[in-house]
Amino acid sequence: MIRIGIDLGGTNIAAGIVTEEGVLLCKKSVPTGRERAAQEVLKDLAMLCRSVVQENGYQMSDVISIGIGSPGLADPVNGKIIYANNLNFNDIDVRGIVNAYVDVPVYVENDANCAALGESTVGAAKGYRNSITVTLGTGVGGGIIINGQIYSGTFFGAGELGHMVTRMNGEHCTCGRHGCWEAYASATALIRDTKVAAAKSPFSLLAKTVNADVNAVNAKTPFDAAQLGDEVAKAVIANYTKYVAEGITNLINIFQPEIIVIGGGVCYQGDNILIPIRESVISMIYGGESALKTKLAIAQLGNDAGIIGAAMLNAVTA
Amino acid sequence: MIRIGIDLGGTNIAAGIVTEEGVLLCKKSVPTGRERAAQEVLKDLAMLCRSVVQENGYQMSDVISIGIGSPGLADPVNGKIIYANNLNFNDIDVRGIVNAYVDVPVYVENDANCAALGESTVGAAKGYRNSITVTLGTGVGGGIIINGQIYSGTFFGAGELGHMVTRMNGEHCTCGRHGCWEAYASATALIRDTKVAAAKSPFSLLAKTVNADVNAVNAKTPFDAAQLGDEVAKAVIANYTKYVAEGITNLINIFQPEIIVIGGGVCYQGDNILIPIRESVISMIYGGESALKTKLAIAQLGNDAGIIGAAMLNAVTA
Repeated sequence: MIRIGIDLGGTNIAAGIVTEEGVLLCKKSVPTGRERAAQEVLKDLAMLCRSVVQENGYQMSDVISIGIGSPGLADPVNGKIIYANNLNFNDIDVRGIVNAYVDVPVYVENDANCAALGESTVGAAKGYRNSITVTLGTGVGGGIIINGQIYSGTFFGAGELGHMVTRMNGEHCTCGRHGCWEAYASATALIRDTKVAAAKSPFSLLAKTVNADVNAVNAKTPFDAAQLGDEVAKAVIANYTKYVAEGITNLINIFQPEIIVIGGGVCYQGDNILIPIRESVISMIYGGESALKTKLAIAQLGNDAGIIGAAMLNAVTA
Repeated sequence: MIRIGIDLGGTNIAAGIVTEEGVLLCKKSVPTGRERAAQEVLKDLAMLCRSVVQENGYQMSDVISIGIGSPGLADPVNGKIIYANNLNFNDIDVRGIVNAYVDVPVYVENDANCAALGESTVGAAKGYRNSITVTLGTGVGGGIIINGQIYSGTFFGAGELGHMVTRMNGEHCTCGRHGCWEAYASATALIRDTKVAAAKSPFSLLAKTVNADVNAVNAKTPFDAAQLGDEVAKAVIANYTKYVAEGITNLINIFQPEIIVIGGGVCYQGDNILIPIRESVISMIYGGESALKTKLAIAQLGNDAGIIGAAMLNAVTA
């Protein structure tokens, strides 16, 4: 028997075949075509399930469940997407529509929650009951796992960890508030701060790395320049990791989970980012290193976390 | 049958007789004498249980359980106090010591968690599965209730909501960090800000309320002066409620509980404090008033929340 996990994104729909134990065997994707009606998008999603199954030598009767990770607000109880700005979905009965094409139990959940569940079941947080997975990407997303299950709050909107204000009256955030953690700890913020630093120090290695073209800066740029010994880049990273650590320290004080997993594009830096974050957390936590009971780790599943977690949705709630 | 709930504080030990349904019938307290050894303090605690039971016409065989709320870090699994600075307790086997004097099941939990459980079982959060009780006092304490049970984190240290930084590099906090929510939203912070305002505006009603003696300022002072129409006091309160709302908005974004209960001394102000906090939360929450799904309420049990919650400890975990 197999599970299907879906990452329903604004650009692509990716479907993966996952074993009962959570191993991703293969995946396939199609464009979302999000300008279309939800009915059309979800029909394609159902057809993608059929084709990924058939092309890999399985039959639909082998499929235990289809789990769908979606941006925005999902209602896992009723299998609905309440609201997803990226998809233009508003109160969509995902389970009902998909079941019109494939007769397999359908589960729906927020994509960041799916990623957290993926890391919790087979990734960096495997074996821990309470974990938080923070994703440092365009924004800062998060998923909370308590007792091995997704905690999505009473109204399914929990886990907006990026919209915890860490700097009152600080940088403007897309949510309308000022000083959200996301406005400092996202990859977007890192790129913004790197651009400012490169513009300020045009003779730095950092600026030279992008041939003084700040528009060429990406989230990897400061790490590349720091690797070459550039002090300007090192300062950018030191600042950034301190920002990340501020929010992580808050989460430890609030949740004291067994482990916090750091994912998203910047996590490919591995220890280059994990070690300074951990040092900064230790400098901030009450009681110092001996009081830091929460493990910090880099995500292990990369972009597949969402697919794997979606596939495992019914495995942990059943 | 009855339950006993204990509030083991740095100054007094208060014991209450609580019905099976969570109604506090009577209470009695003795000085803690915290300079003494834990063994002595806990012997007194056990004797207090005996006397409150006997003086109220019950017998020890009527007692279902003794629940003890303690400051600091408690280990409910093993019935221990791991660490309580206020009591000078360090890895104390509370259950073992108390059971040497009274043969009744003993439960131990952090006091803020007990208060949250009290509000959850019979107070302002009664009937809600997911709630957070925030206590605005000398510091800012908090208790998290998920699925009707205390969430105390893997290492029993969760719920340090006051030590969420909301203003990076801000006011110094007792925990060693800067800009903790507690440094702005505690009653201590309100008193500090009121003193500054009174000193700056010596001809204000606020200053006159305390006869220009800033040392006479307490947490009630700004509310009394605001009631009389004083603009300086109103500004202090507006600032303070905004600070409180910042942290509450963070908690909503992180947890989206059904209800957040606000307790501590300042909550006696009722709507005078609840309404501006709620307005401020609405101004900050993404999507505004219609997106605010979490109810905000004033605590109902006052200082008895801890005793009642302690008494109910085994009722919700059994």
